[in-house]
Amino acid sequence: MIQKGLDNIDYPTLAPNLFEPVKYMLEGGGKRVRPTLVLMAANLFTDDIQDAVIPAIGLEMYHNFTLLHDDVMDKAPERHGRKTVHLRWNENVAILSGDAMQALSYQLIARTPSYCLKEVLDIFNQNNIEIDQGQQLDMEFENRGNVTLPEYIEMIRLKTSVMLGAALKMGAVIAKATPEQAQILYDFGVNLGLAFQLQDDWLDCWGDPKTFGKRIGGDILCNKKTYLRIKAESKLMPPSTFRGQTEEQYIEMYKNYFIMTGAEVSCRNAISEYVAKANECLNRLNMPDEKLSLLKSLAAKLENRNA
Amino acid sequence: MIQKGLDNIDYPTLAPNLFEPVKYMLEGGGKRVRPTLVLMAANLFTDDIQDAVIPAIGLEMYHNFTLLHDDVMDKAPERHGRKTVHLRWNENVAILSGDAMQALSYQLIARTPSYCLKEVLDIFNQNNIEIDQGQQLDMEFENRGNVTLPEYIEMIRLKTSVMLGAALKMGAVIAKATPEQAQILYDFGVNLGLAFQLQDDWLDCWGDPKTFGKRIGGDILCNKKTYLRIKAESKLMPPSTFRGQTEEQYIEMYKNYFIMTGAEVSCRNAISEYVAKANECLNRLNMPDEKLSLLKSLAAKLENRNA
Repeated sequence: MIQKGLDNIDYPTLAPNLFEPVKYMLEGGGKRVRPTLVLMAANLFTDDIQDAVIPAIGLEMYHNFTLLHDDVMDKAPERHGRKTVHLRWNENVAILSGDAMQALSYQLIARTPSYCLKEVLDIFNQNNIEIDQGQQLDMEFENRGNVTLPEYIEMIRLKTSVMLGAALKMGAVIAKATPEQAQILYDFGVNLGLAFQLQDDWLDCWGDPKTFGKRIGGDILCNKKTYLRIKAESKLMPPSTFRGQTEEQYIEMYKNYFIMTGAEVSCRNAISEYVAKANECLNRLNMPDEKLSLLKSLAAKLENRNA
Repeated sequence: MIQKGLDNIDYPTLAPNLFEPVKYMLEGGGKRVRPTLVLMAANLFTDDIQDAVIPAIGLEMYHNFTLLHDDVMDKAPERHGRKTVHLRWNENVAILSGDAMQALSYQLIARTPSYCLKEVLDIFNQNNIEIDQGQQLDMEFENRGNVTLPEYIEMIRLKTSVMLGAALKMGAVIAKATPEQAQILYDFGVNLGLAFQLQDDWLDCWGDPKTFGKRIGGDILCNKKTYLRIKAESKLMPPSTFRGQTEEQYIEMYKNYFIMTGAEVSCRNAISEYVAKANECLNRLNMPDEKLSLLKSLAAKLENRNA
């Protein structure tokens, strides 16, 4: 349903080259988590989720726009194993086709049924401004030494979690959920997103190299401020003897440092707490278990994922 | 009214640095042509134009977003006599705050009254996608030798004219004009925009250096494909003796070449034709002359402007 929607997007025809990078981005894959969440939320309240499909595609378009521009800003060479747009074409193409993707995403959102257009547009707008603020904080944190855990959590909330909340809330609103139900699903999504990002931080150290997809220790090597690093440094600065090792030794020493300082345990506890909070939200929906089984298994999988 | 609206924008507070370049762009000045057109169009149909103010501000925000990202793509050093955002801050800041401006513009557009939200959003979306396509064609033309006049006209229609049409149509729709009236005003705006851009091409050669604001001959020196150059080259390629002159001589030789080939006359005729077409649109509105006087004087001023 989602793939078909993505394949059937009507691209404007006056400057066809503008949309080649857009198609390239969308063909790059990804798990389509956000549009799936839109449809799953809608499906809690209605069997006919057709009205939610185009807005769901709009959100996926928007998500891919953020990836495209983030890749430019991060000078990332690859995404999903393929050259990033600014390397395959050039930076101007990446900027402009990203801008077009943001506009296209709004064109899709504008096709939300009229009874909830304003509400869905407001959710979408708030999400988009928050995402931009999250990216801004992420870039600022790179040049700051004293980032605290609450600041870090706020950054990942904005940069990655609110979009999961927005996806669920959009689906709920389209399917005529009550405002309370829509808000509960939003909160579920944000907590799930926080757990997801912290799990990502943890997997960088202890993920299965066969399935994780990224190099184990990548965050450590580029000195990325993750939950683990911020937590560990708040207890004890890393010994200067870490310098001058081989990369593999350096990664191992950092992993031990994260364990020794209690950062690893703290990270796992935080993940469990966010998953528990997410599950509490679902319980507050007062719906039969079989309705919620998909969302519950999503939360359970997330806590135990190794990839 | 417009300046007050721009001054009173409620910026999000979670990452305040993100909005410093946004404010900087909006403080840079500009003639506020687009929001003024929104309000002038609304005023044709209603005395109370309050409903049109926020959407007008949204369009001005969007316009400034396109300027910001165009400056990055063009590596422009200055705008309105001040450093461009990517030089005053850096390129990443310019990309991200531009993205935020596009999102903010939609947040303002979303405050359009509900009776016409969908219609205004559709006009805005179509405009935005067309602007992106215009910029794409403009970039492609830089690397192409064989751009024809119809292609050039189509490019400037997309890149600069449709936004004037969209401004007027938005104002008309908000003020409950009929679809025919709204479309006539759109056509008026597009013709006005085409005349404006061709006048800009002409002023690059024969404008008053005291008031034009840009260096006379700037387009000639950077080999920009303008109406004059494309028309002239379709008659006669510029003699190779143009090379190796001083800049002032080079500009003078090109101006003579544009006159000799008839490109100058052709350009003035085209401007008059688009202004005439614009005026025809106004006549089709069947409104008392005093109602239309502001728009008519705008068209007249444009044809005779020297700055």
